[in-house]
Amino acid sequence: MGTTGHDVVIVGAGFAGLTAARELHAAGCDILLLEARCRVGGRALTRFLPDGTQLDLGGQWIGPAQTRIGELVRHFGIDTYPTPEHGDPVVDYGGERRTDVPAEAGRLLAEIDALSRQVPPERPWAAEQATAADRQTFASWLAASGHPEQAQRYVGRVISGGLLAGSPAETSLLETLFYVASGGGVDALLGYRGGAQETRIVGGAQHIAERMADELPPGALRLGEPVVGVEHGADGVRVVTRLAAYPAAHAVIALPPVLAGQLRHDPPLSALRAGALQRQAAGTALKVHAVYPEPFWGADGLSGLSTSDSGVLTETVDNTPPGAPRAVLTAFAYGDEAVALRRSSPEERQAAVTERLGALFGERARQPQEFITHDWLAQEWTRGCFSAHFAPGGRTAFGGLLHTPEGRLHWAGTETAVHGNGYFDGAVESGLRAARDVLAARTPSSTG
Amino acid sequence: MGTTGHDVVIVGAGFAGLTAARELHAAGCDILLLEARCRVGGRALTRFLPDGTQLDLGGQWIGPAQTRIGELVRHFGIDTYPTPEHGDPVVDYGGERRTDVPAEAGRLLAEIDALSRQVPPERPWAAEQATAADRQTFASWLAASGHPEQAQRYVGRVISGGLLAGSPAETSLLETLFYVASGGGVDALLGYRGGAQETRIVGGAQHIAERMADELPPGALRLGEPVVGVEHGADGVRVVTRLAAYPAAHAVIALPPVLAGQLRHDPPLSALRAGALQRQAAGTALKVHAVYPEPFWGADGLSGLSTSDSGVLTETVDNTPPGAPRAVLTAFAYGDEAVALRRSSPEERQAAVTERLGALFGERARQPQEFITHDWLAQEWTRGCFSAHFAPGGRTAFGGLLHTPEGRLHWAGTETAVHGNGYFDGAVESGLRAARDVLAARTPSSTG
Repeated sequence: MGTTGHDVVIVGAGFAGLTAARELHAAGCDILLLEARCRVGGRALTRFLPDGTQLDLGGQWIGPAQTRIGELVRHFGIDTYPTPEHGDPVVDYGGERRTDVPAEAGRLLAEIDALSRQVPPERPWAAEQATAADRQTFASWLAASGHPEQAQRYVGRVISGGLLAGSPAETSLLETLFYVASGGGVDALLGYRGGAQETRIVGGAQHIAERMADELPPGALRLGEPVVGVEHGADGVRVVTRLAAYPAAHAVIALPPVLAGQLRHDPPLSALRAGALQRQAAGTALKVHAVYPEPFWGADGLSGLSTSDSGVLTETVDNTPPGAPRAVLTAFAYGDEAVALRRSSPEERQAAVTERLGALFGERARQPQEFITHDWLAQEWTRGCFSAHFAPGGRTAFGGLLHTPEGRLHWAGTETAVHGNGYFDGAVESGLRAARDVLAARTPSSTG
Repeated sequence: MGTTGHDVVIVGAGFAGLTAARELHAAGCDILLLEARCRVGGRALTRFLPDGTQLDLGGQWIGPAQTRIGELVRHFGIDTYPTPEHGDPVVDYGGERRTDVPAEAGRLLAEIDALSRQVPPERPWAAEQATAADRQTFASWLAASGHPEQAQRYVGRVISGGLLAGSPAETSLLETLFYVASGGGVDALLGYRGGAQETRIVGGAQHIAERMADELPPGALRLGEPVVGVEHGADGVRVVTRLAAYPAAHAVIALPPVLAGQLRHDPPLSALRAGALQRQAAGTALKVHAVYPEPFWGADGLSGLSTSDSGVLTETVDNTPPGAPRAVLTAFAYGDEAVALRRSSPEERQAAVTERLGALFGERARQPQEFITHDWLAQEWTRGCFSAHFAPGGRTAFGGLLHTPEGRLHWAGTETAVHGNGYFDGAVESGLRAARDVLAARTPSSTG
C-alpha cells in the first residue's frame, strides 16, 4: 500500500466526517469522503410533509454552549429560531400532574450535577472513585441515593432516557456522570432556553450538513457507496467499498461504534479496540411525530413540553416550525418502553403513543392527522440513537483508547468526543480532533 | 430468491454450526456449511508443540452433566482422561495462602447457587425480581450482600472471571444467575471431579469438531470462505461469501453475537435483533500456557490448580496431557487484569504472568521453556472468549428473542443456549434446536 491515492479517506459523512473532511481540505489535503447513504448528515434527517410541514426525524437542537456547531451555523448564515416555550409544561410525577419539577426531584438532579463536576470529561476513568462508579449501574446508584423513590424514578427516566436514550440499568454511574459532564451539566443538558434544546434550525438540522458538503471540492464526496473494509499498513491504507478500493495515506473512521465494528479490517483491529467497540451499544430512542391542524394545546395554556415518570413516553415537545402549515407534537420513548413499542405492530405502536398523548394533552391529541416514526435502531447505517454509551465497566477498561489512532487509522464520531459527547457539537469536536491527529501524523514527504 | 440451491446454508463451523449441519443432513436436507477459517471447531483450537506436547488454546473441558457433547464424544469413540487432581490446590485468599476455599467464601457461593435456582434458564426474564436483578451489576449485588469483603472479592473473581470471563462490573446479577442456572449450579460449573472441568479430550477438543466434519457429505463444508452477508426473503435466502452467493431455503447463523452483527443483512436485521446483538459483548479471557520440563509443582505437593483474589491471574490448572513429553501450566486472566495485560507488550505480558506463577508455585515457575498466548479477542473470526454475555438491562429487554427465527434466518451458537450456555454443550444444544426449527419451518413442497 502506498500513498499514491488520496491523502486522507474519511468514512462516514455525518457531522464528524464532514468536519474532518472540511478541515483536512482546508489544510491542503487531497481528501475523499465516503458515505453509505445517498445523503449526508448521519443522525440528522430532515423531511417535509407534502404541505411543507418540516420534521426533524433525528437530532435537531443546538444549545448556546455548543460553540463548535454554533460556529458552523453562523459561518453558513443559516437561520435559527428558539424552541417555543409559551405556556406550561406538563410534569407527570407520581400520578400528579404538575407544571414544574418538584423540589425533591430538583435536589436529586442537583446532586447528580454536583457529582458530574468531579468527573473530568477528558479523563473520566481518572476521576476519584471512577472504578467504583463504573461498577454500579445508574439504577443501583439511584436506588441507594436516599432520595424519595418517586424522585429516583422521575430523574432516572429524565437522565438515562432523555439524555442517554436508554434505561438507568444500561449505563454505569460513571458513564452517566461523564455524559453530564461532557455536556456541561444537568441544567445545560435538560434546558430549553439557555440549554441544549434552545435553538432549532430553519430548514432542519440536515441542512447544516448539506452546506458543509457543498463546500467540499468536486468529486470529494461519494454518496451511496458503503465502505466494506479498510486495509491498513505502515505505508498507507486502502478503503474498500462495494464499488472500488481507494488508497490513501490515512483514514478517518467517522462512524458510530457499532458500524465501525462492522467494517472488515485487514489486519484485524486490535483486541482492545474490538473490546471497546463491543461494549458501546447505541441508545434505543424512538422519536415519533404527531401532526395536527393546529397547536391546540396552546389554547389550554400548555407548551407541548412534558416529562413523565410513567407511561410509554418520557418526554414530548412542541416541534412546530414557525410559519408551518400544521402543528407537530414530537414524543420520545426510551429503554424498556422503546423496546416494548418495537415489539408491537405499527398500529399498536401508534395506538399506545396517541393514547398517552391524549392523557397528557387531552382528547384531540389522540387523533393526529399524521403519525410519523423513524426508527434509527432499524436503520442499517445508524443502528441506534441518540448515541452509544459504554456498558458498566467499559469506560474505565476501554475508554482511554477511543481517540487513540491505530497506526494510520483515526477515529471520529460524537462517541469519541470530550465535550458535547452525543451531540452535533461533539461530532464536530471529534472531526476537528481527528483532522489535527492526521495533520500531526503526516510525514514531511507526504505534506507536499 | 428461490429455493433452487441448498435446503439450508449454515454459517460458522463451530460446534453449533457443525451440529446443525449434521442434524439437518441426517434429516435428509441438502446442506452447505460455510466457515471463514481454514479449520472447524470455532473456539476450540488444539495445537501441538514440535515435541508433541498438546495445547488446547481455547475450550477444552467437558463435564458429566454436559450430556449432548458427551454423547458426541462417545459416538466417535474419542478417548478422554480426567483432569489430574493430585496434590493440593493453592487458594490465595486475602494474602493468605490456603489449600481450600474458606468457609466464608463457600457461604457466599452457596447463596449465589441458591439464587440461581430461582432463575429458570428457559425464561430468565420471567424470574421473580428479574427486572431488579437485571438493573444491578453483579459487583453491586456483591457489595450489598453483607458477606465479608474478602469473600466478595474472591467470589467475584471466581464467578465473573472464571465462569463469565469478565469482571463483576460487566454483567447484571440476573445475567450471572442465568449463566449459573444454565450450567447446572455453582458446584457443577466450578468443579473438576464431577464438574464442568472433569474431562479432557485425548487429541484435544478441536478433534471432536473434526470428527463431526468428517461425517458431512463431500462438498458440504467449505473452509476459508468468510460469509459477508445474507439476503433473505419470503421464498428463501442467499448467503453471500467473498467467493460466491449460495441460494437456499433457510439459513442458520451459528456465530458469536458480535460476528453475527457484522454480517451485512439485506433487508437489514430488525431493530430488536440489532439491539440484542449490540448488547452482548464477549468475555475478555486471556489464557496462557507455560511449558516446563516436568510438573515440578507435584514435588511440592501441589496440583497446579490455583485460584486467587488478587494478582493478574484468577486461576491456573495443570494442563499436562497424559504421557506428554513436557508439563503445561495454564493460567487465566479476566476483566480488568486481561485488559491491562493487553495494554502491555508481549514481553511485559510474559513477565507479569510468569512473575505471578512464581509467586504461586515457586521460583521454577518463573522460567518456562515456552510461553504461549492465543488472544481470542484479537481473532477476527471470534472476538472474545469464553462467550458473550448481556450487559445489564439487556437480558430482560432483549433476551427473549435470541432463538426466535427472523423469517428464514435461524440463530444458533452457545450464546443462544438454554442449558450449558457458554460451553460446548450449549453450542450443541443450540445447533440441535436450530435444526429442529428449520425442519419445522420447511414447507411440504421443499421437504422433498
